Amino acid sequence: MAHPHALVSSVGKRCARPRITQDGIHRLMIEAARAGQSVVRLKSGDPLVFGRAGEETRALCAAGILCEIVPGVTAALAAAASLSVPLTDRLLASKLIFCAGQHAADKEPSPLWSGRLPDDATLVIYMPGRDTARLARELANAGLPPDTPCCAVSHAATPLQSHAVCTLESLAGLECGPAPLLVIAGRAVAPLLEGEDLSLAHAKPETAVALSF
Amino acid sequence: MAHPHALVSSVGKRCARPRITQDGIHRLMIEAARAGQSVVRLKSGDPLVFGRAGEETRALCAAGILCEIVPGVTAALAAAASLSVPLTDRLLASKLIFCAGQHAADKEPSPLWSGRLPDDATLVIYMPGRDTARLARELANAGLPPDTPCCAVSHAATPLQSHAVCTLESLAGLECGPAPLLVIAGRAVAPLLEGEDLSLAHAKPETAVALSF
Repeated sequence: MAHPHALVSSVGKRCARPRITQDGIHRLMIEAARAGQSVVRLKSGDPLVFGRAGEETRALCAAGILCEIVPGVTAALAAAASLSVPLTDRLLASKLIFCAGQHAADKEPSPLWSGRLPDDATLVIYMPGRDTARLARELANAGLPPDTPCCAVSHAATPLQSHAVCTLESLAGLECGPAPLLVIAGRAVAPLLEGEDLSLAHAKPETAVALSF
Repeated sequence: MAHPHALVSSVGKRCARPRITQDGIHRLMIEAARAGQSVVRLKSGDPLVFGRAGEETRALCAAGILCEIVPGVTAALAAAASLSVPLTDRLLASKLIFCAGQHAADKEPSPLWSGRLPDDATLVIYMPGRDTARLARELANAGLPPDTPCCAVSHAATPLQSHAVCTLESLAGLECGPAPLLVIAGRAVAPLLEGEDLSLAHAKPETAVALSF
């Protein structure tokens, strides 16, 4: 996507092993901007949802550098679209909650949710980690019933996407795909458990009527 | 955007006065698809977040019509990007909650939130209605402190966008713009209260270094 003359610096992080520190990323951007370059900080998903855009814009503002944020499709929305499953539902889910399982890697893991989760919510856990037994315990402790539909989505909205569905009572044993991973829990995603799949992804082209939202 | 030969049917709703019923929308799509037409159901925002995509895909599935959902940028993300304000923050907000103020127009208004809201959340209320006094009371009852930063955004991410900021204790008297409206509440949006604005929207082109995320 980048212009052939663009200088491309990969600053991605994987599994809490930064190749470059957050401060290093700020410094790179500030130095390039001060050198008169047009800087594009490209992320997947939406930069304002678990994307550190706040820290980065603060650093740029402090250095007197103007910036524009272009919104994106956050992973939860991309995953739901590719699975053809709603995140809210007029009757079942009037709330949508995004939580981070491993948001601040340098802190002790804190509980995902303190108190009781609302009955009428869809919960999406970004970066849930590999400990599905602990996740299942936390969701049950927050009041989700054992038959709550759950779906783990690996590599959402990429050619590598895979997903696995279950109810909360069997989440502990769910075989999830590799990170990046999302877990969606709530009654709105019940159609996934029923196994009905009329999405275009699995249709022969000649039988498909394209309906885009 | 539509092809000049496309048949365009506007089925928008405004202020709970439907020009066409939801069933009527389903019927239109099903009839057009059965007549062999390619049907595009276009919505602003993301169709899976307070967008009735669930109901519409169920109706299409029941009629044996295949469909694909293309995700979008939901209003909360669009508004946050245009205001250059994060919705999550590694230290202040590890949860992001979308609530609907007036989601099921045919039901008695139910409380926005039962119980206590988490301390470390950003709350976005879609369709909050005009009763800011009631909204302020509900947020306070859910445990948000009086100094919680709040922002009402009208016509998010359109040329008509306007916004107004305050703390929760003065939300009842906030002059909000016209619907469609969003209210964002939480410590992550504190930079808006501080009035700092280094976003490109207000910069002269010759002084701007474009930084897109």
